[in-house]
Amino acid sequence: MSFEVVPQSMPFADPLPLRSGASIRDYSLAYETYGTLNADKSNAVLVCHALNASHHVAGVYAGQPKSEGWWDNMIGPGKSLDTNRFFVIGINNLGSCFGSTGPMHANPDTGRIYGADFPVVTVEDWVDAQARLLDALGIQTLAAVMGGSLGGMQALSWTLQYPERVRHAAVIASAPNLNAENIAFNEVARRAIVTDPDFHGGHFYEHGVVPKRGLRIARMIGHITYLSDDVMNQKFGRQLKADDLRYSTQDIEFQIESYLRYQGDKFSEYFDANTYLLITRALDYFDPAGAHGGDLRAAFARATAKFLLVSFTTDWRFSPARSREIVKALLDNRRSVSYAEIDAPHGHDAFLLDDVRYLGVVRSWFERIAAELETSR
Amino acid sequence: MSFEVVPQSMPFADPLPLRSGASIRDYSLAYETYGTLNADKSNAVLVCHALNASHHVAGVYAGQPKSEGWWDNMIGPGKSLDTNRFFVIGINNLGSCFGSTGPMHANPDTGRIYGADFPVVTVEDWVDAQARLLDALGIQTLAAVMGGSLGGMQALSWTLQYPERVRHAAVIASAPNLNAENIAFNEVARRAIVTDPDFHGGHFYEHGVVPKRGLRIARMIGHITYLSDDVMNQKFGRQLKADDLRYSTQDIEFQIESYLRYQGDKFSEYFDANTYLLITRALDYFDPAGAHGGDLRAAFARATAKFLLVSFTTDWRFSPARSREIVKALLDNRRSVSYAEIDAPHGHDAFLLDDVRYLGVVRSWFERIAAELETSR
Repeated sequence: MSFEVVPQSMPFADPLPLRSGASIRDYSLAYETYGTLNADKSNAVLVCHALNASHHVAGVYAGQPKSEGWWDNMIGPGKSLDTNRFFVIGINNLGSCFGSTGPMHANPDTGRIYGADFPVVTVEDWVDAQARLLDALGIQTLAAVMGGSLGGMQALSWTLQYPERVRHAAVIASAPNLNAENIAFNEVARRAIVTDPDFHGGHFYEHGVVPKRGLRIARMIGHITYLSDDVMNQKFGRQLKADDLRYSTQDIEFQIESYLRYQGDKFSEYFDANTYLLITRALDYFDPAGAHGGDLRAAFARATAKFLLVSFTTDWRFSPARSREIVKALLDNRRSVSYAEIDAPHGHDAFLLDDVRYLGVVRSWFERIAAELETSR
Repeated sequence: MSFEVVPQSMPFADPLPLRSGASIRDYSLAYETYGTLNADKSNAVLVCHALNASHHVAGVYAGQPKSEGWWDNMIGPGKSLDTNRFFVIGINNLGSCFGSTGPMHANPDTGRIYGADFPVVTVEDWVDAQARLLDALGIQTLAAVMGGSLGGMQALSWTLQYPERVRHAAVIASAPNLNAENIAFNEVARRAIVTDPDFHGGHFYEHGVVPKRGLRIARMIGHITYLSDDVMNQKFGRQLKADDLRYSTQDIEFQIESYLRYQGDKFSEYFDANTYLLITRALDYFDPAGAHGGDLRAAFARATAKFLLVSFTTDWRFSPARSREIVKALLDNRRSVSYAEIDAPHGHDAFLLDDVRYLGVVRSWFERIAAELETSR
């Protein structure tokens, strides 16, 4: 069993200005910490989450032995990111539905539930909010920031928005921006949610309903893009649910259908529809090269951190080629970069799974950071 | 302008037994023919259609100059499949919404619109129905059968169901069966349609509505899988619709979103929801190796036709690897096979587009067949 952890919440009264021009005030951020902050506060590691995750990165809650955090295989005492050496912070982003202020909370200006009126947030806004949490915790500089997928984008953005506050950045299964196909899948998922009659323009809370039909479709699409063709064929192939065909367009015939419907149903029970819209939009918008005419090299000129990039060969959502774009832009700026391309069959999901080479690379990288911390004392 | 054509319809009173165990009677098949059947009836070529197509394969309708058939670039006087030499037959499959008997027609047993009660049809059933049309037209043997994508599956199935009636088969951008990912995308599209409240269990006609929300989502998903990553990035990339970001989760920000919504809207105006379910299911079920324990070589032992296989490098829906499986199975049976793998950026859609190498390969193949016909006279 993993170690016990306790979720915390930090309130912020002051307005946080957002990239959209709007701002948000009287919000709170849910977070967890593991390990001990050292005396000179130099061993903090911030872990950023992806679409369907939260501040509950590692450990379990008291009395809930199966409540492991989403990166519990990576983070903990003696693990790749060793909480005996590092003070690890997990944070839930603004607009999420797992504890931080989001669309299902009340707007302090109106007293009504935000719903679709929750301001659109960007990766940059999230990083600003994360920086305020560090301020509140008295941490000036991060030993490292780390994230996978959308979390990797936040780690990248940290090195550009607060270069002086982050010494290392681990960017895993990520990309410098979404391509047209990525945006396309996000848009189909959003349309499925928004056109569900139970969405009610994003104010479904008032109607006592949830746009589950749309959420199910969104999650099914997501799952297809998380898995590789290989692993899908290996796990499901053309296996039938029953011994014989039923000759039906609506009943389940194939195991892959059963799997996807189950994933969709489960997701629609707990994920907030407005949060799904916000998070996919934050993904769409992220594009640090955009402000430099598409020149990623120019964008990374401000970064001073040392980087670890990891990609997975069968990840077709954020392919290795996208990670290599980042590696090249960093090398063109003569930055320190370690890059591992892991030959794994699991597609995008690989960043959450156990792979000894992958976990070993991250372990070695953090061991070097720990050694640097020892030396600098 | 292309040549003028006239759609026709052939009624069939006798019941057609279907693979599901059901049967269908008093149905009609819409078809078109181009060119002239020769005296010994040896120059007939049957063209089978894919998901969103019909019997209107080539030419235009009188007074409708923009009504070109879906393969008009391939088929016509002097074209790759030359209607000056061949008698070409286009046929609309059972269950379609473009003229042949389908879910929006009345069930002769009840007098009510079939709707979701239209029997589930398979590729094999379609081929049986096509064979009856040939019988009615007095054609015993096809010079060739040809199709792309799902149409290619029908061409394949012809060579297995009626080996003595088909001398050549052109199988373009197709596969020996769907893999798990293909089925997964079909299932998401079906769930989007079936869970649209306007679907009414498939009997929406009686309610005067159409499940447009579901159809839109289905078509958007389809379009993503028809295009390659390359061509999407080239055509749309991250181009914005307006000069500035709107910071909205529901408004259109990116051109790719605009394109997909337009395609979805257009499709939902004319395509029947029950037909979409039936056709995607026929795709799912097709698996000629299934009856031989998955051994495609054994499945093709009965085929005697000469084959042309064509695939496109960036087609990730039916990748070249899938076509090569068919080529290998045919070669293992010492069958005559020509195979062209066309380096084209357009993804699955390439089979409908102009590519001189592709159109040239098909032209050469049919020229050889025409020469054989001359020799055998």
